[in-house]
This record gives sequence, structure tokens and C-alpha cells, in this order.
Amino acid sequence: MAKSKFEYVRHFEEEKKCLKDCWIVVRIDGKSFHKFTKLHDYIKPNDDRGLNLMTKSALSVMENIKDICLAYGQSDEYSFIFQRNTQLYNRRESKIMTYVCSLFSSSFVYYWNNFFEYPLKSIPSFDAKIILYPTNKKLRDYMSWRQADCHINNLYNTAFWALIQEGGLSPRDSEQRLCKTVSSDKNEILFTEFNINYNELPQLYRKGTVIISTKEKSEIEKEPKVILSVQHVDIIGDQFWKEHPILDKYPD
Amino acid sequence: MAKSKFEYVRHFEEEKKCLKDCWIVVRIDGKSFHKFTKLHDYIKPNDDRGLNLMTKSALSVMENIKDICLAYGQSDEYSFIFQRNTQLYNRRESKIMTYVCSLFSSSFVYYWNNFFEYPLKSIPSFDAKIILYPTNKKLRDYMSWRQADCHINNLYNTAFWALIQEGGLSPRDSEQRLCKTVSSDKNEILFTEFNINYNELPQLYRKGTVIISTKEKSEIEKEPKVILSVQHVDIIGDQFWKEHPILDKYPD
Amino acid sequence: MAKSKFEYVRHFEEEKKCLKDCWIVVRIDGKSFHKFTKLHDYIKPNDDRGLNLMTKSALSVMENIKDICLAYGQSDEYSFIFQRNTQLYNRRESKIMTYVCSLFSSSFVYYWNNFFEYPLKSIPSFDAKIILYPTNKKLRDYMSWRQADCHINNLYNTAFWALIQEGGLSPRDSEQRLCKTVSSDKNEILFTEFNINYNELPQLYRKGTVIISTKEKSEIEKEPKVILSVQHVDIIGDQFWKEHPILDKYPD
Amino acid sequence: MAKSKFEYVRHFEEEKKCLKDCWIVVRIDGKSFHKFTKLHDYIKPNDDRGLNLMTKSALSVMENIKDICLAYGQSDEYSFIFQRNTQLYNRRESKIMTYVCSLFSSSFVYYWNNFFEYPLKSIPSFDAKIILYPTNKKLRDYMSWRQADCHINNLYNTAFWALIQEGGLSPRDSEQRLCKTVSSDKNEILFTEFNINYNELPQLYRKGTVIISTKEKSEIEKEPKVILSVQHVDIIGDQFWKEHPILDKYPD
Repeated sequence: MAKSKFEYVRHFEEEKKCLKDCWIVVRIDGKSFHKFTKLHDYIKPNDDRGLNLMTKSALSVMENIKDICLAYGQSDEYSFIFQRNTQLYNRRESKIMTYVCSLFSSSFVYYWNNFFEYPLKSIPSFDAKIILYPTNKKLRDYMSWRQADCHINNLYNTAFWALIQEGGLSPRDSEQRLCKTVSSDKNEILFTEFNINYNELPQLYRKGTVIISTKEKSEIEKEPKVILSVQHVDIIGDQFWKEHPILDKYPD
Repeated sequence: MAKSKFEYVRHFEEEKKCLKDCWIVVRIDGKSFHKFTKLHDYIKPNDDRGLNLMTKSALSVMENIKDICLAYGQSDEYSFIFQRNTQLYNRRESKIMTYVCSLFSSSFVYYWNNFFEYPLKSIPSFDAKIILYPTNKKLRDYMSWRQADCHINNLYNTAFWALIQEGGLSPRDSEQRLCKTVSSDKNEILFTEFNINYNELPQLYRKGTVIISTKEKSEIEKEPKVILSVQHVDIIGDQFWKEHPILDKYPD
Repeated sequence: MAKSKFEYVRHFEEEKKCLKDCWIVVRIDGKSFHKFTKLHDYIKPNDDRGLNLMTKSALSVMENIKDICLAYGQSDEYSFIFQRNTQLYNRRESKIMTYVCSLFSSSFVYYWNNFFEYPLKSIPSFDAKIILYPTNKKLRDYMSWRQADCHINNLYNTAFWALIQEGGLSPRDSEQRLCKTVSSDKNEILFTEFNINYNELPQLYRKGTVIISTKEKSEIEKEPKVILSVQHVDIIGDQFWKEHPILDKYPD
Repeated sequence: MAKSKFEYVRHFEEEKKCLKDCWIVVRIDGKSFHKFTKLHDYIKPNDDRGLNLMTKSALSVMENIKDICLAYGQSDEYSFIFQRNTQLYNRRESKIMTYVCSLFSSSFVYYWNNFFEYPLKSIPSFDAKIILYPTNKKLRDYMSWRQADCHINNLYNTAFWALIQEGGLSPRDSEQRLCKTVSSDKNEILFTEFNINYNELPQLYRKGTVIISTKEKSEIEKEPKVILSVQHVDIIGDQFWKEHPILDKYPD
């Protein structure tokens, strides 16, 4: 194909690559989801429709990008872990993070009507970042961080909304009430005032969602097929990682 | 909010910022759009519905990100130019490019039904890259590059599809026929064999689409309002830039 | 040459390049020069031997790296400006900054005895950083910044040491005396108390040192020859840049 | 201290940091050492004075930068390994690599006369690069790579110079003779033609130089003291690493 004399400007493009042998994590986060969930009447503190739509979108990402071996989601965020030795886009940072972010965003809109009975009223969007972890231990600590964060936020939100919805407090008073409490205080409030046993709430809310991807040789197509398994389980302890030795495939 | 002992892993995040005083360009590109347009029966060589959906999505991006002052689109790509001194997300590269890419992707799905009479059959996606240009001249050369590219591709595609659709050639034979031709040859083929005067084809196809954003003080809201103007004009010559002294606001 | 099975580790190397069309500045800075100058009995506030050794080392750098077109030095720092379009080491950041830093360090030790009558008592060292400026204006502002810094520091140091050496104050008292003064106060102290007219001090101290490099075709060798001119003049105003249109060769 | 209006240009500086938890390697390399060694009459293929000066300079670097725990040198290069969790200069890439490079360069000139009976005739210089390795295994492979390289080069050079110095060949003929030989051929040439048993040559030439740094609490000063141990031993096999469990202090 012919080239113009302006072609030279392409040499201003930079191609930062992910350091070899590091685990690549892409985390997407909802933009202004406080406003978005309000506008779309999300149930508080947890809206199953919203959470399931997030997971449906994550599954869509993983069906398209077969080098993602694991994902973890909670609230309006999802983290995607690429197999350690992935050569996708030659490990170029911007290609990897924008492709994940684009697929997730498109899927979220595409599948909206599968989960909500009313149409979208505004255009949802997400940002993404890419993070490198040099060792298996650091990657596990990252996963633990996100799940610990899920727990901390969910316990807070559960108490916050109970005080409002059942306790009749204003948002400001509810915040005030909780601002100096520790975990056990919030558990106590939920139990004694609202008869809610936090530990009996659905795992989906308390643990978030893990998706495990397994590649399987397809008998028909060249490309391997991926089997995706969705779970709401603890990933901080060792048991999950013993049952799913995903990281062990890539020892340090 | 309480913090877990895993919090430390957040320090593995890097925050690359765009060099100050450089023009920031984010270009999104359709992923596998050859396959996507085939599956969705796009009219060849140019499908007005598809092109207008691209521009509708670009407008959606620019309504949400007011620091974009200019955009240029053709085929399955769109370039967004940020005002030179933008402080959006503190000029963080990944935030900027993933937000643009996400908004564009969501909008493309959201507005699909406004342009196509049949529903989406697969999930479209885009990738994005961020490019820095140090001076006004280089930025203009970038814009010229993309428009020259539009012309080169469109002339080729117009001839390629005329040979197939009206000339009855197979795609392979059409490619063969064109492979050693220069511009004037393709113009000649179109004119003598198919009675097509290339220069009379719609500007939309030959020039692509420019969108100019102008910020206006809103009388009601704090945030400025943006006025978006869509044009299909030459941006390689000086006239456009004289009429729209967008770059002159930020002299080198 | 044979290769070992360990060869693969070389692919962990990254090669960050300087954005094209930007001015490249490498600034070297003395490490722990407070301690170094004390150990080597530098004359305070300005030691001609030390300043001239710095400039000799800078000249040595510029004789070896012909793509440096300009340098500015003061105190224990020197900035080297590369011609805007340099292709030295393919514009690789680490190669450029370490080579400048190494040459400067080696030269400083090599030429020590040309300036000091006693031998080195410890090993001097410098660090270096690389900075990109997108436009001529920004580069001039950088040069102005360093010269303004020279003036500010030199005025302070001249007053500080006069109060100690001639005024008999302790370093702490001298610092105390100056801590809330502005420029005019310091000029006043120097004039009324020590009969020093600051503006009559040598330009070397007040303006620092500019080195201009001009390439000249050699009649004997293939490589161009560089002519180096050392000056102690104002570079903040326009006059210098009119007389030496170095930046104009590379308009934005 | 007062600030000028040009101060803003400092915000063009970028501070790239080394990814946490990765091993940091800085490798310095002689610039144009082919020419330098010729000009200074280095003995070929190995000049003890030159090799010992390199090691003396490396020791000087390690005395000054206590966070370097290991170094390996051969020919005109030296690699410095920082303890995995170093916080030196907040892990800023340019600070770390330029400081190492500067100290090495200064020391090389400073100690020249301790090793050579004649003065320097030109100014030696080095460049440096910084490389990150995510795991202990990769770091060991890096060390093995450099030592394997030492062996390959030294065997070649020993044969190359024997053919010239004792065999009377021209450099071109010597090169020709060796160009298609493998290791065993070169060993054979050395043994049968020049009665040299390669494996009996000094370890310094065949294995290069390892320097191990151990921090020891000083009884007098706050700063720990470093004990430096110089060895010429195999570091590819496990024995060295069992005797010196340097990496085990920082398990993956």
C-alpha cells in the first residue's frame, strides 16, 4: 500500500512491554458507579443483577482472551490474571489493558438486558490498570488483598444500609454511627439490632467471585477451548490453591 | 476504612504520566473488524450506518471527556486529541487511554440499534494506544497522516469492490489487478470501467470525519458545556486550521 | 560466537528511548560535594580551581560527544543539551545518561592535578538524570532556571561566608541572620557591612559557565571537529540567543 | 531559598522506579575498550594489571554502595547485584545506574597508577544499564550467562592470540582458522600446537571474578561495615550458592 510523507509520525509511538516472567494483572474499575448505580436503582448494599452482570462480562472477556487463567471480582471491579508466560500482543502493556477494558465495557452493555428488566439510562464505563507481580507469593497476596477488601467493604455496607433501611437513620447518621467501629462492633450491630448473622449472608457478597479458566484441546477447532468455572469461595487460605494449583504450573 | 496486611501489594502499581506540554493523542482501533463487518453484513466499500455509529460513539466520548478538543475518524479507527495542557487524571497514561477506549466501546454497543435494523450478533471491541507529539507541527502531521491514509485506503477499496461487485471479479483477481497500480491508475479504472468519478464520491468516504469541540460556559451548571461540530473536510491544507485555530491556543 | 543456554536472560533488558523531536538534557550533580569540598579545602564561597575543573571536565565530555551543542554549569552541576534530532545510541536513555556521567567522572579525576596542587583524597562521584523538553521555549526556560538558581545560591553563599569569614559569625548565626532576608537585604549586608558590591563580583560566580559547541568539517578526518567556546554571560535575556541562534536551527 | 519563575520546568523530570521485589542488576561496560587497550599496550589475551584494576574499581563501588551484595566481572565489564529489597534512592533507576557508573569510572582513573607503570593516555569511559530479574532462578541464570560468556570469549581469545603470538599468523588468518571451530577444536589447537592445557590457565581468566559483600555491624560507627571477598570460582554449578546462600536470604 502506498505511504504518505506523513508516515514518519508513527515513530513517536512507544511500546512498553511487561517485564518477562512476571504475572500480569489487569484490574478494571467502574467509573462513577456511585452515580450509575443510583440512576439505575441498584438494590443496596448488594444487587444480584449488577453483580451477575459484572461476572457475565468477565466471562465474556475470558472467552475471548484465552490466556487469562484466573479472575476475581467484587463490587464494580474485576481483576484478570494472565498466565505467567503469556505472549499475547508480545506483552505490550497498552494493547493488553485496553483490549480487556474494551471487551468488558462492550459486554456490560451487551448483556445489560439479560439481567435488568429496564433499559440502560446512561453509558457505563470502566478504567483499567496493569500491574506486574514478580513472584507467586506476591500474586497470592494481591488476590488476598482484593478479597480482604471485599470483606471489609461489604461488612461496612451491610451495616451502613441496615441502619438506614431498617434502622431509619439518615446516611449521615449511619456513617457517624459506624465511623469509629471495628469489625466486631459491626457484626454486633447487625446481630443485636437487625437480627442479621453476617456470616450467614451469601458467599457472593462476602467472598466475591472467582473465575477459573482451564484450556482444553478442542476436537473440532485448532484453538483450545476454555472451560470457565465460577465460584464464591475463600482464596486467602491455602485450600483453594491446593485444589486449584494454577500458580504451581509456573513456579518461580 | 480498615486495611488488610495485604495492602502493601498496591505499591507494585506504576503511574506513567504523559510528558508535560506534549499533545496527547489516543487512537482506538477496531479489533478483528474484518470478521465483525462480514458477520454484520456491512455494505462495501463504505457502510454509512457503520461510519455514523463510529462517529456517534466518538461524540459520546467527547461529551463525557471535555478536555478532548478534536477528533478524527475513518474506517474502524478514531483519534482523540486532548487539549495540550490537560490535567485529566494528572495525565496518567493508562487512566486516559482505558477511559477513552471503554467509553467508545460501551457507546458503540449502546447506539448500535440507532443505526442498524438488526441486533448485534457478537461483541465488538477496540484497542487503544496513546501517543505524544511535542509540537503543533508534529500534531498536524499526525492528523495529515491519518487523512492521507483514509484517502489511500478508500481509493483502493472503492476500486477493489467495484471490480468485484460490478466487474464480476473474484476478490483474488481484483487484488491481483490492483496490486501494481498507482493512484491515477485506480482513478482511471473507476472512471473508464465503472463510470465512477472518484472525486465526486461523498466527502465522508474520501476525507473521513473531523469533530471539533468547543467549550462554552453553561449558565446553569458549573461545568462548561461542549459544542461538538462534525465535518467532512480536508485537514491536510492550511484552510481548516485557519478557520479553526485550535492549535494556536497552545503555541509551542 | 557460540551462545550459552542462559542467553535468554538478555530479553529482560528494556530499552527506553527519548521521545523523538524533544530536546534531551543530561544534568550531572556532585554526590556529597559538601563533604568532598570540605575534605579538599575548597575556598568558600567560590573556588576557581574547582569551578575550572568542572568546566574542563565538561569540555572533555563535549569533545567526545559531538552531538552535545550546549552546556551550562554552576557549582557542582553541569547540564548538557543534545542537538534536538540527535540519533546518538538511537536515543536510548540509559546509554546517553551513563556515558555522559562516566566521561565527566573520569575527566574530573584525570584533570584534578591540572587544577589542584595536592592530590585527591577521596573518590569523587556524580549522578545524572535525563530530562526531555518538547519545545524551544521550555528548553530556554530550563536554561534560565539553572542560571537563576546560580544567582540565588551565589548571592546567599557570598553573604553567608562574608558573615563568617569577615564578620566573625558562626555558621549557625550566619544562617540565622540570613534566613528571612530577600535579595536586596543580602546585597545591602554585603555592601554596608563588608564593602562588597555584589554586581562587581566575577561573572563566573554570578552567571556560571556556558559552553557552546560548533561542528566544523575537518579537512583531514571524516568526523567533524567541534569548536568549543566558554562564556560567563547572561542566558536568561534574548541577547545571548540572538548572538547564538542554536535553538533556531531546530524550530518547533 | 527563593525560587524563580522558571522553577516549573522541573516538573518535566520523570522518576522511573525499579519494580519492587525484583533483583536489580547494574552492568557497566567499557566504551571503545578495543582502542583503549591497544593505546595502553594491554597484554593479550589477558592483562593482569587491567583485570585487577577493574576489580579494584568494583571494590571501590561496593565500599561506597553497601546495598550491593554481589558482583561479577570479566574482560571490560562488571555486573553489580543489589540486595533484593534495597531502598537505595527509593529504587530510582537513573540515580542507581549513574551513581554506580560514575563511581566505577572515577575509581578506574584514580587507581590506574596502582596497576600500570605508565600514565593514562586517554580518558576511559563506561556505559551502564539496569536490568530487573523477578526471581532467584532468573538471577542465577543471569550470573551463569555472564560466566559462560567469559569462558567462550576467553577460550577464543586464548587460541586467537596463540596463533598470532606463537604461531606467527596474521590476525586475519587467525580469525579465519578459528571461524568454524567448536570448543573442543580450540582446546585441541592450544594443546597440540602450543602445548597449552586450557584447563590449567589461571581461574582469573577462565572464570572471571566474583565479589561477595557481607555487612557487618560496626562497633564504632552507626553504618554497617562491609567485608568484601574476591574469588575466581565457578558460579554456574550449585556448590558456590550452597557455600554462599546470598539469594536464599530473599526467597521468592
